[in-house]
Parts: sequence; structure tokens; C-alpha cells
Amino acid sequence: MQLPTQSGQPASRPHMLTGTSDLDAVLPAAIQRELTAFLAARETECTRIDQAVGSAVRVLADFVLNGGKRLRPIFAWWGWRGAGGVPTGTQARAVLRAVSALELLQAGALIHDDVMDASMTRRGKPTVHVTFATRHASRRWLGTAERFGASSATLLGDLALFWADDLLREAGLEPAALERAGTVWNSMRVELIAGQYLDVRAQASGDETDLAALRVARYKSAAYTVERPLHLGAAIIDAGPELIAAYRRFGTDVGVAFQLRDDLLGVFGDPSVTGKPAGDDLREGKRTLLVALALRAAAQRDDSAASAAEEVIRGALGNSELSENELDAVRTALVELGAVEAIEQRIAALTDSALGALRAVRVAEPAASRLAELAVVATNRNR
Amino acid sequence: MQLPTQSGQPASRPHMLTGTSDLDAVLPAAIQRELTAFLAARETECTRIDQAVGSAVRVLADFVLNGGKRLRPIFAWWGWRGAGGVPTGTQARAVLRAVSALELLQAGALIHDDVMDASMTRRGKPTVHVTFATRHASRRWLGTAERFGASSATLLGDLALFWADDLLREAGLEPAALERAGTVWNSMRVELIAGQYLDVRAQASGDETDLAALRVARYKSAAYTVERPLHLGAAIIDAGPELIAAYRRFGTDVGVAFQLRDDLLGVFGDPSVTGKPAGDDLREGKRTLLVALALRAAAQRDDSAASAAEEVIRGALGNSELSENELDAVRTALVELGAVEAIEQRIAALTDSALGALRAVRVAEPAASRLAELAVVATNRNR
Repeated sequence: MQLPTQSGQPASRPHMLTGTSDLDAVLPAAIQRELTAFLAARETECTRIDQAVGSAVRVLADFVLNGGKRLRPIFAWWGWRGAGGVPTGTQARAVLRAVSALELLQAGALIHDDVMDASMTRRGKPTVHVTFATRHASRRWLGTAERFGASSATLLGDLALFWADDLLREAGLEPAALERAGTVWNSMRVELIAGQYLDVRAQASGDETDLAALRVARYKSAAYTVERPLHLGAAIIDAGPELIAAYRRFGTDVGVAFQLRDDLLGVFGDPSVTGKPAGDDLREGKRTLLVALALRAAAQRDDSAASAAEEVIRGALGNSELSENELDAVRTALVELGAVEAIEQRIAALTDSALGALRAVRVAEPAASRLAELAVVATNRNR
Repeated sequence: MQLPTQSGQPASRPHMLTGTSDLDAVLPAAIQRELTAFLAARETECTRIDQAVGSAVRVLADFVLNGGKRLRPIFAWWGWRGAGGVPTGTQARAVLRAVSALELLQAGALIHDDVMDASMTRRGKPTVHVTFATRHASRRWLGTAERFGASSATLLGDLALFWADDLLREAGLEPAALERAGTVWNSMRVELIAGQYLDVRAQASGDETDLAALRVARYKSAAYTVERPLHLGAAIIDAGPELIAAYRRFGTDVGVAFQLRDDLLGVFGDPSVTGKPAGDDLREGKRTLLVALALRAAAQRDDSAASAAEEVIRGALGNSELSENELDAVRTALVELGAVEAIEQRIAALTDSALGALRAVRVAEPAASRLAELAVVATNRNR
């Protein structure tokens, strides 16, 4: 199996995933393959600087390649396909590489996020900073293992962010397509950071309004999970303003619903399925919409059961020592206050509204069907 | 005074810094002006997302605009001029913007570095994470001020890294020039991170060989302070391989000498001039070449004065509580072991070798003279 050359020009690849075959059918595997090839070339480059740097890059590569649902590149791909992109040939492979860059951006953001939150696991494995801290400890190195882990992960996160850019720019898009894509890409990066900052700030200031929670969901998740990836795909092929507006409407709704599902899974999810501990959002004091709605309901109801439930929730927020039993009590309180039901209703309403926006414009098949399916997958999932 | 428009196209500016005037004479002010305009546009963009994001971006802008010697863009500018760049007109202004991007890359790297090292001051002011931690504390927010500071600074560092890219790409370079510049830029970013990782790793593993210290100086400082900026300037104008090779030789030598001077200033510098506390490298356990040479000399001399001096140095390395008196004892020990003298000699030899490399090729005036002066400024300075 031949890998693409480092210049981003694909070498001839006599393999079912490529050549003249249709990429639609093998999308996640094809994305994985582009990421594998790109990161292997980077590892070689870094090993040339120093063995130790190459070995650090291998940790980053493992994190990226072990990872996730590939939702962002998949949304971007179908956004491009729905606007008329043809899934075979050179341009299709260039688009595949360009949208795969979203996974590297995501990796960099997650690695930094895990350092900021001191999260121990991600995708069922130790987080990157924990991996480096463990190495430090096992070698009995100097200084604290924690600091070495955080520093190494910060630097690898920076690399992932740099390389996301490189992969987009070297994907082989036509210059005009790259320029259109670049504009969307730049806005998306800023929105991602803005959303994360608003999240960190709302946690710190204790802002527990619906508005704050929704603004975080809007920027931190919706924009860069669905809306901007779709917009990116559409921009590559220079889709018209109507389609782009519909994609953005659809993407915002699905993206917010995706985050609301994430918030529910963060409290109620099965860690063996989600890959991360339940209750960490609460331990970190995150004011999710789930929590915001519960607290508002408690304030409105003003009976003793509601007050007790509120007290349980407030006691959990920001309590890094929250036990499994206490977490169970929070779950009961959230249900009792109607917040779980309210979030489920909101997810359903957002999904409906998203599907309506999509139906109102002409989206080429099979993209229209696939996007509708993805809306359901992204918002009704257990991981 | 009109600012450039956001698209990167300069509006007409009837001002002495621009128009048809010669940028050589006003270089630092012109760089400052480009950075000011770029960051003001970004702040507006972010304020549109949320007031709080705009306010965070203002902290980043203050950090960038308060900052530094602008050595990197200045080296890049003279690299371009020495290869035949003409300092007036549209292309000159595009190059000015492109090389100013180096300051944003530097800002992002420094902000992350300060978080990693938990440094309190930089350029005579509180570091970015300390600024945010102070806000947190004064508002009596939830969670720890330290974590809020580190998270905010990590995110702002990410933004600075993103925007460095944007400024380079929107500078207005011709597409072919941008492509050549982009290749150098990408290598430089990887070398910067590789150098920082090797630094963090050598601190942790306690590697105190000359080789490790020089490798860190080579990648962390030389490559992205002088060598790659010169290379960037030369690449923009498509300079020949001989000139590029000479620039890189010159840049590596000056860059390593620059770092050796930095290491000396880190121990012997006057904090009121350098803008950062003396002794922090020692407190952090950094194995600089200065320290490596001292420890090697001690091992070779094997007399009791040398052993005593070695003990003083080893006691200081990684001792976060190092006092002013103990620092004074380290200074005496470094002098006693001949390390200060050896570093000064090495700085002089590197500067000579750099100047020789520059003289061996044709570099257009006044760039040849300015680069020779800069070599001396960068390696013989007190801040």
C-alpha cells in the first residue's frame, strides 16, 4: 500500500480506497488513511531533528489515530458532496485531505483542553499529558511529573494545530477553493477558542444563565463541529448563498443538540462506552444548559423537594472529590427538576428544525439523506 | 491616521511611515503599526462574538505591543533587503506585514512557555496567565485563580499562533512568494516546538551534556530567532542557494550566540533591564550550556574549590526557592569554574564566524552592514 508523498501529491495507489473508486463508501477509513500517512511523514521529519521528538510525535499520532467519530470531516465531506462535489478523482482526494485537517485541529484543541481541565482519560485511554507524566514518573526524572506532562502536551497540542493548517494547505485544493476554504477555516478557529474561553470564564464566574450555557454550546461545539465543517465543504465548491445559509442553520441546530447530548452523556453516560469518566463536567463546575435549566426550575418551583434537589446540584458543582454516590444523587435531582426531560425535548426540537432547514433547499443525493442520518446519529448517541 | 483594512489591503495612508517612503528607516515603528492595526481588527471581530472575548484579546494585544526587540521581523526584513528587496511600494508593505507575523508566533510561544514554566513576569510586566489569575482573584471567582489564568493564557496563546498564520497569509505577498515563504514558515514552527520540547525534556531527564544544551539552543533559539527569519526573507524574493546557505550559517551562529547571551543574562542580568527575574533558569533546573560547561570543568579539575563550586550549582538547579544570596553564590561558582569566560569566548567566536559567512557572499547594502550590526547587537546586549 503506497502512501501519498510528503508534498501532498498522491502517489498512484492501486488500492480499493482510492484510485477511481467512490470515496463515499469508505469515508472513515479513507480519513484514517490520510491522517496516518500525514502523521507518519511528520514523525519521520521530527525524528530527523531528534529521536525524542519523533517519539513524542508518536504519542500525538496515537491520540489522533485512536480517535473519535470523525464527525467533523464527515460533515464537511457531505457538505461538499451535497453542493455537487464528485466523489472520485484527484479533486475528491484533495477534498478528503482538506477535511481530514479538521481532525488535527480537534486533536490540538482536545489536548489543550485536557491539560486545562486536568482530565485523566479521553476516548478510553490516558490523556496525552497523563501519558507524558507517567513516562516521567516511571523514569524517576527531575521536577514534577505533572508539570512535565502538561508542558509536553501543550507543545504537542501546538504541533497538532500547526499541522492542521499544513494539511489543509497542502491538500491539493485549487487556489481559489483553498482561499474560500481558508476564510471559513480562520473564522472557525477563532470561534472555537472564543467558545472555550467563554466556557472557562462562565465556570469561573459561576454564570448559570441559559444564555451563557447556550452561547458556549453555540461557539465551542456547534460552530466547529457541524456548522463550519459543512460551510467549509460548501466553500470549497463555491456553493451559493442559499445552500450555505441552510447548511449553517442546520449545522447550528445539530451542533447545539450535539452539545446538549454531550452534556447528558457527561452525567448519565456509561464511561465504558463514552471513554471518559461520568460527572467530570460537574466536578469541573461546568454550567451546562442541563444544570442551568435545573437551577432555574428549582428557583421557580420553590417547594422543599426542589430546594433539596438544588442543594444536591450546587454541592456537586466544582466539587473535584464528587463520589459515585453523590453523582447518583445529582442524577436523581436533575430528573426530579425536569431538566433531563427538558433537554431531551430541546434536542428533539433542534433536530426537527435542522431537518426542516435541510429539506427547504436542494441538496444533492445521497448527501441529503446522509446529512439527515448524521443529524440523528450526532444527537441520539450513547458515546 | 488610517489603518489597513481587514482584508490586508492597505488603505491609502498619507503618513511618513508608509506611502512611498523608505521603510528601512522606520522599521520597528512600522512593524508596531502593522501589529497594532492587525490586532485592533481582531479585537473588533472577537468583541462581536462576546464582549468578554474582546477584552481577553486586548490582554493579548497589550502583550504583543508592549513587546520585545522585534529582532525576528527585523532579521527577516534585512534578509529580504540583502537579497535585493526594494523598501518602497506595495510589495515592501506586503513583506513588512509578512515578517511582522513572526512577532505573533513568538507571542504565542512565549505565552505558552510562561504557563509551562509558571513564570511571573515577562518584559517587566506580569505574564499573561498571571494577569488573568489576578482578575480571577480580584473578582472572587470560583475555582482556583491559577487554573483560570493558565487556561485563559493557553487559549490566548493558541489564538496568537493562529493569527500569526493569518497575518502571513493575508500580507499580500505574490502567490509564489507566499508558497516559498510557507515552506520555511512550516519548518520553523516545527523546529520551535521541537526545541522547546527538547528543553523541557532535558530539564526533566537532567541531561547536562554540552550536546543537549547546544541542541536546545540550536532549535529553540537559533532556528527561529535568526536563521529561519533570514531564510524567510530570502525565500520571499527567491534568493539563490548560495545566499540562503550563507544566511543560514550566519543565522545559526548568531542565534546560538544570542541564546548563550540570554543564558548569561538569565543569571547575571539586571532584572530592571531584562524585564524578568534573575535566576529563574536555575530555579527551573534548565541545563544551559553555561551550567553544562561549569559542571564539566568541575569534574575535570577535581580540586576542593571546584567541588564546592559544583555543589553550589547542583544545589541551585531546580530549587524553586533559590534566594538572592544563594544566587550570588552560584554566580561566583560559575565564574570560579571558568564557565562565564568560556561562554563569552564562544559568543565571540560564533559572532566572528557569522560575520565571516556573511562577508563570503554578496549581500546588497545597506543590508550587509545592518546584518553585521545586528549580529553584534543580538549577542552583546544587556536585555
